[in-house]
Amino acid sequence: MINKLIRKIQETNAPVVVGLDPMLDYVPRQIQQKAFDEYGETLRGAAEAIWQFNKEIVDRIYDLVPAVKPQIAMYEQFGVEGMEAYKKTVDYCHQRDLVVIGDVKRGDIGSTSAAYAAGHLGKVRVGGAVCSGFDEDFATVNPYLGSDGVKPFIEVCKEEKKGLFILVKTSNPSSGEFQDQLVSGKPLYELVGEKVARWGEEHMGDTYSYVGAVVGATYPEQGKALRKVMPNTLILVPGYGAQGGRGKDLVHFFREDGLGAIVNSSRGIIAAYKQEAYARYGEERFAEASRAAVEDMIADIRGALETR
Amino acid sequence: MINKLIRKIQETNAPVVVGLDPMLDYVPRQIQQKAFDEYGETLRGAAEAIWQFNKEIVDRIYDLVPAVKPQIAMYEQFGVEGMEAYKKTVDYCHQRDLVVIGDVKRGDIGSTSAAYAAGHLGKVRVGGAVCSGFDEDFATVNPYLGSDGVKPFIEVCKEEKKGLFILVKTSNPSSGEFQDQLVSGKPLYELVGEKVARWGEEHMGDTYSYVGAVVGATYPEQGKALRKVMPNTLILVPGYGAQGGRGKDLVHFFREDGLGAIVNSSRGIIAAYKQEAYARYGEERFAEASRAAVEDMIADIRGALETR
Repeated sequence: MINKLIRKIQETNAPVVVGLDPMLDYVPRQIQQKAFDEYGETLRGAAEAIWQFNKEIVDRIYDLVPAVKPQIAMYEQFGVEGMEAYKKTVDYCHQRDLVVIGDVKRGDIGSTSAAYAAGHLGKVRVGGAVCSGFDEDFATVNPYLGSDGVKPFIEVCKEEKKGLFILVKTSNPSSGEFQDQLVSGKPLYELVGEKVARWGEEHMGDTYSYVGAVVGATYPEQGKALRKVMPNTLILVPGYGAQGGRGKDLVHFFREDGLGAIVNSSRGIIAAYKQEAYARYGEERFAEASRAAVEDMIADIRGALETR
Repeated sequence: MINKLIRKIQETNAPVVVGLDPMLDYVPRQIQQKAFDEYGETLRGAAEAIWQFNKEIVDRIYDLVPAVKPQIAMYEQFGVEGMEAYKKTVDYCHQRDLVVIGDVKRGDIGSTSAAYAAGHLGKVRVGGAVCSGFDEDFATVNPYLGSDGVKPFIEVCKEEKKGLFILVKTSNPSSGEFQDQLVSGKPLYELVGEKVARWGEEHMGDTYSYVGAVVGATYPEQGKALRKVMPNTLILVPGYGAQGGRGKDLVHFFREDGLGAIVNSSRGIIAAYKQEAYARYGEERFAEASRAAVEDMIADIRGALETR
């Protein structure tokens, strides 16, 4: 799956992920209304609204980008019905041949991590049958519990040829509170980065490891340092756009070959129609606004990589 | 809810949580068979089996303990259908007046943490209506992303009078890999513990904070140190029994008043019938074996507290 992701990045010439993180506020009124007419102002109504919203956006952008990253929290807030919308979204993106990165940030100890890994990336045995739960291609993982929290994910990834992105340095303002603390003279995120590189050696694709890292666009200097610490690691970079990151800040997350990073934008794409720059599309043509925002983001990143 | 939890601990005289972490292997054959006959060897069949298993155990133990802690990973591995079984379990435990600690170990940045908090502890607005997702009483939270990942949970807890248990020092063997790293001469888990104490001051119950901590039973020395760092924090202690912790190791997690900690056992209770000590109950009377194991655990902890 890492080889497929790299190939798709090359084919689209777009190291870009669209974050499918639908807040109900982003969903245009006509879609909300239709869903509520059918299912009421209920969890099911909300779930239907975000699913229809996602579907229209995916239909408009699937040919431009290699991957999408649904943020499961935005579905989980609507309970079981929200989880159904998440699963439908994963399956639909697969139909459109998109690589699906489940932004689930799970992480626990041994057998519990194994259960998360089975549910999101692997299979479970039920009597004599073998079933899949959510079946994403990649999942994000929180490393705070250490190797024996991460290894069960890697085991499942090996069996399934799937991958991970481990949180190393997150994009939020207070990420430094623990992640930047100096341990023997270097920040904790570097120690985590070194571990990611080592875990990654256990499960290599053709040029990149199946074990990737998350490093926020809002921390370009840290990205530069971590690029060196993790030479064969694909870096997933959140925080572009709405959180403040720009193409020129991101060049050091990439390797010299122009690969090595994949940049996520969520709100900046899926709620583009709410921005002044794309207001001309209006609420009715929200998915076209998303397509235009993806095109602009790709151009920004390509431009930055070409002129570095 | 923290006041209710403390009151229930006093009423039952049992600082004990039963971890409802059903692996399909734990579920006796007669329950599996009935579920598979009805729903097939499918995710739905598995979900039905773990739900029926939970229900029988809860019916047998609800009067002995103040709280249960379902581990969501064990449900999530069965996809959407598993999440339905999780929700049914939460609701059923509420009917039995048990405090429900959702062991979800979520944690993300700002608006995403807010969505998790809304989904597990709070409410979401859908049009003019207000709905609840999973509706647990407490949730476990991963602190790696720092204050702005944790604060949205605390905000929701304030509104709903609900609580958190933040991972400080986890029970697994490699928890030290990052958590024990020295930061300015003290281990990271202590730094996290200090933060938990400070976050806790923002949302106090009568005697304990709504913001609790997770410290593994397998690390009694660290528990002793953290008890001092977090004087008003209720400590959730996993790792009793199957992971190796025993009552005598745990006395220092408690305050002098015999309160201040609540000890979890999962496999040791719900799969008790598989242990030699409870084999006499057999597969048919698995829930009675669980009750006996709870009684033994309570006696062990009470005894240790009385003789310290």
